[in-house]
Amino acid sequence: MMIKIIVGTNRKNSVSEKIARQYQEILQKMDVSSELVHLSDLPDDFVFTALYENNGKNQAYNKVHDQVKSGSKYVFVIPEYNGSFPGILKSFIDGMTYPNSFKHKKCALIGISSGVGGGSIAMSHLTDVFHYLGMHVLALKPRLAKIEENMSDNLLTNRLYLGLLQEQAELLVRF
Amino acid sequence: MMIKIIVGTNRKNSVSEKIARQYQEILQKMDVSSELVHLSDLPDDFVFTALYENNGKNQAYNKVHDQVKSGSKYVFVIPEYNGSFPGILKSFIDGMTYPNSFKHKKCALIGISSGVGGGSIAMSHLTDVFHYLGMHVLALKPRLAKIEENMSDNLLTNRLYLGLLQEQAELLVRF
Amino acid sequence: MMIKIIVGTNRKNSVSEKIARQYQEILQKMDVSSELVHLSDLPDDFVFTALYENNGKNQAYNKVHDQVKSGSKYVFVIPEYNGSFPGILKSFIDGMTYPNSFKHKKCALIGISSGVGGGSIAMSHLTDVFHYLGMHVLALKPRLAKIEENMSDNLLTNRLYLGLLQEQAELLVRF
Amino acid sequence: MMIKIIVGTNRKNSVSEKIARQYQEILQKMDVSSELVHLSDLPDDFVFTALYENNGKNQAYNKVHDQVKSGSKYVFVIPEYNGSFPGILKSFIDGMTYPNSFKHKKCALIGISSGVGGGSIAMSHLTDVFHYLGMHVLALKPRLAKIEENMSDNLLTNRLYLGLLQEQAELLVRF
Repeated sequence: MMIKIIVGTNRKNSVSEKIARQYQEILQKMDVSSELVHLSDLPDDFVFTALYENNGKNQAYNKVHDQVKSGSKYVFVIPEYNGSFPGILKSFIDGMTYPNSFKHKKCALIGISSGVGGGSIAMSHLTDVFHYLGMHVLALKPRLAKIEENMSDNLLTNRLYLGLLQEQAELLVRF
Repeated sequence: MMIKIIVGTNRKNSVSEKIARQYQEILQKMDVSSELVHLSDLPDDFVFTALYENNGKNQAYNKVHDQVKSGSKYVFVIPEYNGSFPGILKSFIDGMTYPNSFKHKKCALIGISSGVGGGSIAMSHLTDVFHYLGMHVLALKPRLAKIEENMSDNLLTNRLYLGLLQEQAELLVRF
Repeated sequence: MMIKIIVGTNRKNSVSEKIARQYQEILQKMDVSSELVHLSDLPDDFVFTALYENNGKNQAYNKVHDQVKSGSKYVFVIPEYNGSFPGILKSFIDGMTYPNSFKHKKCALIGISSGVGGGSIAMSHLTDVFHYLGMHVLALKPRLAKIEENMSDNLLTNRLYLGLLQEQAELLVRF
Repeated sequence: MMIKIIVGTNRKNSVSEKIARQYQEILQKMDVSSELVHLSDLPDDFVFTALYENNGKNQAYNKVHDQVKSGSKYVFVIPEYNGSFPGILKSFIDGMTYPNSFKHKKCALIGISSGVGGGSIAMSHLTDVFHYLGMHVLALKPRLAKIEENMSDNLLTNRLYLGLLQEQAELLVRF
């Protein structure tokens, strides 16, 4: 099993990337292989050059797309932007080829926010998207609210949050 | 009053743009001024060059942003992509400057789909986003399902749909 | 103007009722009339005796229904139960006669939770319901999370929360 | 394996019950045991006598509750009422004892509507509730829109719909 951990934003040095790296360590301790997928690796203009009539024609987009497609289980780290998921994550999905690469696969979601929401509505929206695409979503969706206050030296330190990620990782492996 | 009609996709020759033009004619007959906003006018790489640390620095993005910002009422024509709104529309919103340009303003949503859904979930998600940003959303949100079957010569012909757009336009003017 | 404040649960001595009373005082200081509606006044068996083929036939249900119907603006105090709104509130709505009493009216929502969510998803769901019924929902939807920790002597004491309720009340009056 | 099929309404002779019976036959042909759960078996006043301080004390409610609790997989047949799930279904859930009986279990949802929606938003809302409770939801959620036009002699006749139910049943057994 190879779990793909998708950093849900292209923001540089994002908190989401830090959480993704920490999640990878959790999986590593469980002897589960994983790989990070960075939306920041997408070509800058993919929203115009990889969608619609250009679907499948942008090689730089296709490289990230293939990296995602080859997985069978996923973890999405989702920062809350304006009360929902980041637009770039949805644009990446909008560029995927048909039949979509997520059908009958399984994923886990983690929500992140500076405020108190913890990305709960972002994850609800994304669940709708993934269900539409035929991908099962693990019920446990940790909400990491007030994230900055709960990290130190680029590491999540809140024990409750760490426990939820550990629990989720174990459930995802068996899901 | 100047209503901004936002075409919710950057797809070329989109059905959404055709509906937006038809909506403009409805408003024109009511002697209400309106203006189309095209996401296709955004710079190709705005998802990388107009967000986060580059917020407010991309002049081509700012031009569209200013066009939107100057409005007080909006109509969003939303094609359903993968069970939600198009990623590019959300990315445009993610690039808007703070304090956001939508606060205390009012909008109307129109959903479009090739399938039977009519964009109802896309509009529900977008309502969450706009409420988060403090913009009121008109309750009447027409769902234009099976859109291709209901158009002829680039014009919406379904009388039920046309009636809903007319009713919505009248409500929006008074909203 | 007469604003109806609906306590969204039939739980006895509910926190929602306390918040509703405090909201009434806020409106009173603004010289705006309001009235509390208690779902606990509904007949015990209304889910079986006031819906479907019995629609409109249960006089005790009709009394509460009429009380709601006569309003033009509403405040709904919504405790989060199991990640959404209370079933009883939806059952009350399911028993309303057609054409529904909420069409073209306006409302404001307040979410309450013991946990950190503040009823944000409950309010999102209820917004879908009210938009379906044609009622406009004020964008500002305060989320009163960890409610027990923010009350003292049956009164909300958190200044941020109180400020949000005040702001919402003022917006609702002008909405 | 024993699959519990829950009829999501207490309406007499409901379409949901007919669909539930047909689903049971689909499972029977696959040699999978199943049992119908009728919300109409709940005591008339359970919304007042089985919740909150009365949680667990109403024997007639407990009987249905135990019937549900003993399952490990579920099918929920959900008619769309006022743009969401029926209030009575949520009230039944609101009365369940803690720790909840759905945690770590799995379910499938079927949406039903007279109109074109097919209960998609009702199923989205219910997915939020079940994820909150820790129950996994199968991604494939058939939307049986315009249900009356697609039935004959109390049986679903639309081949597309029947195919979706068959596909869902097979996925649920392996889920």
